[in-house]
Amino acid sequence: MPETIRLYPLTNYTFGTKEAQPEEDPSVKDRLKRLEEQYDQHGMRRTCEAVLVCHEHGHPHVLMLQIANAFFKLPGDYLQPQETELEGFKSRMNERLAPPPGTQLAAQDDGDWQVADTLATWWRPNFETFMYPYLPAHCTRPKERKKLLLIQLPKNKVLSVPKNMKLLAVPLFELYDNTGRYGPQLSAIPHYLSSYRWEYVDEDGTVIPGVMADAAK
Amino acid sequence: MPETIRLYPLTNYTFGTKEAQPEEDPSVKDRLKRLEEQYDQHGMRRTCEAVLVCHEHGHPHVLMLQIANAFFKLPGDYLQPQETELEGFKSRMNERLAPPPGTQLAAQDDGDWQVADTLATWWRPNFETFMYPYLPAHCTRPKERKKLLLIQLPKNKVLSVPKNMKLLAVPLFELYDNTGRYGPQLSAIPHYLSSYRWEYVDEDGTVIPGVMADAAK
Repeated sequence: MPETIRLYPLTNYTFGTKEAQPEEDPSVKDRLKRLEEQYDQHGMRRTCEAVLVCHEHGHPHVLMLQIANAFFKLPGDYLQPQETELEGFKSRMNERLAPPPGTQLAAQDDGDWQVADTLATWWRPNFETFMYPYLPAHCTRPKERKKLLLIQLPKNKVLSVPKNMKLLAVPLFELYDNTGRYGPQLSAIPHYLSSYRWEYVDEDGTVIPGVMADAAK
Repeated sequence: MPETIRLYPLTNYTFGTKEAQPEEDPSVKDRLKRLEEQYDQHGMRRTCEAVLVCHEHGHPHVLMLQIANAFFKLPGDYLQPQETELEGFKSRMNERLAPPPGTQLAAQDDGDWQVADTLATWWRPNFETFMYPYLPAHCTRPKERKKLLLIQLPKNKVLSVPKNMKLLAVPLFELYDNTGRYGPQLSAIPHYLSSYRWEYVDEDGTVIPGVMADAAK
């Protein structure tokens, strides 16, 4: 049986801002160069990104960062070589979205991210831009492995967004079949979420009846 | 942690043929008309299809039916109103692929299909051809729900293919990003399988070392 994941309304979450976080590399070429240098030192890059899901009016929405009013990405980043996957992932998430330490908002946040599932694993076979949602045939030395992790968001949470980014709640119907705007990884998120049953909860914590009950008839 | 699924080589499976199974409806229009008639009588149609995975040279391949050298589909079909999901699914699978009762090949087959997971749920909101991998917003009376089920194939199995069809082992790299040839559901299978770890076993039953070990470094 598919797992049931509880979704809370977008309005349950509190959004603040914090200092800008400029891109680490100024160009794609620089990014691939850094990847190659780090591969020579530490081996395959491990990246973890989060799929944060809430709902509006009973339809799932994914929280995504938009940079410079242009391209979209998920929160998360690559891990340091010595970090375990889980601790590295949580550090990257808090660097990106946790309220700055010492602020009033920080006091309301526990800094935890509850991983519900691995949704997909993307592989980069070469020091190139293309990645695949499977390990390509005959590729024994992939250069990067990127996991998309489904996060069970708590009932309430405080998120602080770097000033050079926006955090948008994008509905599944906007992502689906929209590789042109969101790229192959983000536009596949409706597929990755397709095996779950959602339980929609309203702002009072009451399960919204009807939708799945009718659908499962 | 992602689940590990064991994959056996394609050569472990035995393929026979059996009598042709013509399409139930001669046209898309007839098919939608039947859907509407059955909906009026029994409510939402429930369909279950199987994703059968094996490997060739350490790359996953999906077993698909090809009809009249033209379009592709997964084994499986819609359930009868009184059937439970699992018994209906197994009946449809055996009707399609089990050796005919009384034959020598039938004696080698236990008629079982081990469901490892639900990979995706597609919804048909109207009596139209389009479906979505999520329940569309505000759709409370879907007309069809189609589940794609991942089957853990046993080490050996006998499959009998209706004479008007072919059973093909299609590699993930052929399906990926190939909606034009395979349609939106089949071309998304690499995404649905992206969260699993594969354990490749050779014809002697020995786990093939290396690929995942290196990749998971």
